[in-house]
Amino acid sequence: MRVLITNDDGIHSEGLIALSRRLCEIVEVVAIAPDRPRSATGHAITLHKPLRMQPVRLPGCAIGFSTNGTPSDCVVLGMSSLDPRPRLVISGINHGPNLGEDLTYSGTVSAAMEAAICGIPAFAISVASLEVSNFDPAAVFARHLAGIIAKSGLPPDTFLNVNLPDVEPSEIKGVAITRQGRRRYQSRVDERVDPRGRAYYWLGGDLHNEDTDISTDVGALAAGMISVTPIHLDLTHHEFLGELAAWGIGEHWHGDG
Amino acid sequence: MRVLITNDDGIHSEGLIALSRRLCEIVEVVAIAPDRPRSATGHAITLHKPLRMQPVRLPGCAIGFSTNGTPSDCVVLGMSSLDPRPRLVISGINHGPNLGEDLTYSGTVSAAMEAAICGIPAFAISVASLEVSNFDPAAVFARHLAGIIAKSGLPPDTFLNVNLPDVEPSEIKGVAITRQGRRRYQSRVDERVDPRGRAYYWLGGDLHNEDTDISTDVGALAAGMISVTPIHLDLTHHEFLGELAAWGIGEHWHGDG
Repeated sequence: MRVLITNDDGIHSEGLIALSRRLCEIVEVVAIAPDRPRSATGHAITLHKPLRMQPVRLPGCAIGFSTNGTPSDCVVLGMSSLDPRPRLVISGINHGPNLGEDLTYSGTVSAAMEAAICGIPAFAISVASLEVSNFDPAAVFARHLAGIIAKSGLPPDTFLNVNLPDVEPSEIKGVAITRQGRRRYQSRVDERVDPRGRAYYWLGGDLHNEDTDISTDVGALAAGMISVTPIHLDLTHHEFLGELAAWGIGEHWHGDG
Repeated sequence: MRVLITNDDGIHSEGLIALSRRLCEIVEVVAIAPDRPRSATGHAITLHKPLRMQPVRLPGCAIGFSTNGTPSDCVVLGMSSLDPRPRLVISGINHGPNLGEDLTYSGTVSAAMEAAICGIPAFAISVASLEVSNFDPAAVFARHLAGIIAKSGLPPDTFLNVNLPDVEPSEIKGVAITRQGRRRYQSRVDERVDPRGRAYYWLGGDLHNEDTDISTDVGALAAGMISVTPIHLDLTHHEFLGELAAWGIGEHWHGDG
């Protein structure tokens, strides 16, 4: 079985290599990843310029390419150029959490989303620490989960988002199946002045109110567990459809001004 | 009431100006938009470099700024720097549809998503044609919808995604409240050779199987209607949680390899 791995930290990142080293024990690993860090790119794809693929040798990988594209571009390139096609896509191992509303910004998660759009089972995997001490437990978990998905598959239009705490395996409190929670950022823009006296702005912001409910990804991580969240491509707020229809938006509208 | 408008086509695009001209008839309009086209940027935010805001005069706008950031950056900048804060965010009017899985790639939609994350009601609005003949019907509809949302509000963590066909107002077949459908792209990568004989790749691809179900955004547009889809920030596949829990992912896993 062939597995495509990618990430948003770049082809030479420690998390991708840790993943490759463990996965190659059970499957054939192909890596296609950005040639430089592409964090917080969201689900960007590159439509306006050509993409390049540069062969790269990586530990554990049968085939490796770096590209000038985004994580999602890497998945599209892999799905169209590899024969046989990969049967699973794993995005990661990201350094830093991808929880709550992080998901929509995350290049790591978006690569797994792109795979789901292409009809291929996928998961994103992250270690919830910006200074990860050890990627190997996450790599071992990815190998484990890859084996399960190879047997069970995933429902259509679905992928998994996995986060691990950055602790020794013996300290992990278990695996929680979770829903997406909320993190809330505050004071997200710093206004500063450059050496020529002109204003500039830097996006930052502190977390100030995270979910503690253990049924959420955020809460499970805070409790020292591995979080596995199933994500669906359908973003519709189904419960609100009826109320919105009752608003009668179309009734008093005249398109000529 | 103050309304923030942004887009992904850039501050000087025709759709943004058409929107501004109509909105200013009922509210105070502030525009903060990218200084150049930022289509298909997904929900990218700019964390690694400073952002600039350049004052710009635009028809109908009380305040206008162009930025070197993404559409989502524009919303974050607006929410943190404007006093009083806008009470509604409108992203558009985009030239080209934002339907089905387009939503996750779309800078236009991501700006509305960012507003929802910030706790502000929002909608994205697009005209489903790459060569839009007339943005005014969409601008009139945006003014209409802004008036409704000013009264009704929107549920938490929710925004609307609006698409109009590019036809005269009299030809619009009504307003449909829809769920997100699917578009399916095929053969998405062109492999080409540059003048020096090196391979490069261009993402493209044709639609080959769109939803025709009129209850979806894609189907409603195809039927000549305006589509209004409520979108929620929670991406969890709730129906799959139970089955996934039954997989017993945590049972036979040993993190030490």
